[in-house]
Amino acid sequence: MDYFPSALENLIDKFAALPGIGRKTAQRLAFYIISLSDEEALSFADAISTAKMNVEFCSICLNLTDVELCVVCRDERRDANIICVVPDPKGVIAIERSHEYNGIYHVLHGVISPMNNISPDDIKIKELITRVSEGGVDEVIMATNPDTEGETTARYISHLLHPFGVKVTRLAYGIPVGGSLEFVDDATLMRALEGRLEM
Amino acid sequence: MDYFPSALENLIDKFAALPGIGRKTAQRLAFYIISLSDEEALSFADAISTAKMNVEFCSICLNLTDVELCVVCRDERRDANIICVVPDPKGVIAIERSHEYNGIYHVLHGVISPMNNISPDDIKIKELITRVSEGGVDEVIMATNPDTEGETTARYISHLLHPFGVKVTRLAYGIPVGGSLEFVDDATLMRALEGRLEM
Repeated sequence: MDYFPSALENLIDKFAALPGIGRKTAQRLAFYIISLSDEEALSFADAISTAKMNVEFCSICLNLTDVELCVVCRDERRDANIICVVPDPKGVIAIERSHEYNGIYHVLHGVISPMNNISPDDIKIKELITRVSEGGVDEVIMATNPDTEGETTARYISHLLHPFGVKVTRLAYGIPVGGSLEFVDDATLMRALEGRLEM
Repeated sequence: MDYFPSALENLIDKFAALPGIGRKTAQRLAFYIISLSDEEALSFADAISTAKMNVEFCSICLNLTDVELCVVCRDERRDANIICVVPDPKGVIAIERSHEYNGIYHVLHGVISPMNNISPDDIKIKELITRVSEGGVDEVIMATNPDTEGETTARYISHLLHPFGVKVTRLAYGIPVGGSLEFVDDATLMRALEGRLEM
């Protein structure tokens, strides 16, 4: 027996289908939506359809954008000879926050993951190879996540880029700034020792 | 500088405004919406507007419904002489799950809470008094939450119902079934002792 009206049950189902949202939270959110004013609820619904309809991939770097080129690619002060390869649009934000990078990006929209049935063809590797093959690229920086899948993806791409004679680098591994040595895991410490620099 | 397209930023803002959803989770949810098919995303948007537009209060008990009467009030097998007063529609579900109650409900849509600026006039107490004053009610069961605000609300309503000569009861306090005595708090144990029954 359904104790909630079907329209409400339906909304709860929708929320519960979102990643990381359980049934109880979905109920809470649906009740919150019901408690909003008509205008607020409709503007929420509208935000969903507008975002879905208007957000596209940048035609150069595949970052998310609502115009032809993303905010980075249309900035003429950026150095288009350096491409930083990130797994997803959140990677772009993370690198931008460092205020250290002035090149442009390539968003893979995923990493190679045999466990999750994601092959190289499922992510935007071909598009990167095409960009590099067209020339004008001096360096490709691999900024995939420091885990097995990120590492595999970086090595795979680096291998494919080799014939083009372009410099391929990756982010340095090491101890995080502000952390305590005591809490740094063994693998990271090993990498930090390997990559030690003269002072 | 906004690194996300404005339509996406807007959707993230909307999610972040939901109760218990932080900025990072809102981002995750918005990205998930973008990754859905057009059809799925639009059906989510539609679920929100439909729920908001179609869900109303039952004209008898103020439970949520999408027709004139809620699922309990339109069931003729229910005993309309007993009214169980719950703070919100989730209270109805909780009591229904026990399969122990055959009366009908009254949903207050809140509890008296001076701390949160909620006075008796802000919740559906008047409607309850009207229902009782129209006669035909033998018993009103107060099923507000076992906290200070719930208790206050129950006592306030019980006081108002006194002139009508109707029997007012409340849910028993005591140790929860399946719990361990060791973890029962002092206030609950005190109530359980006060309410002890002969075996």
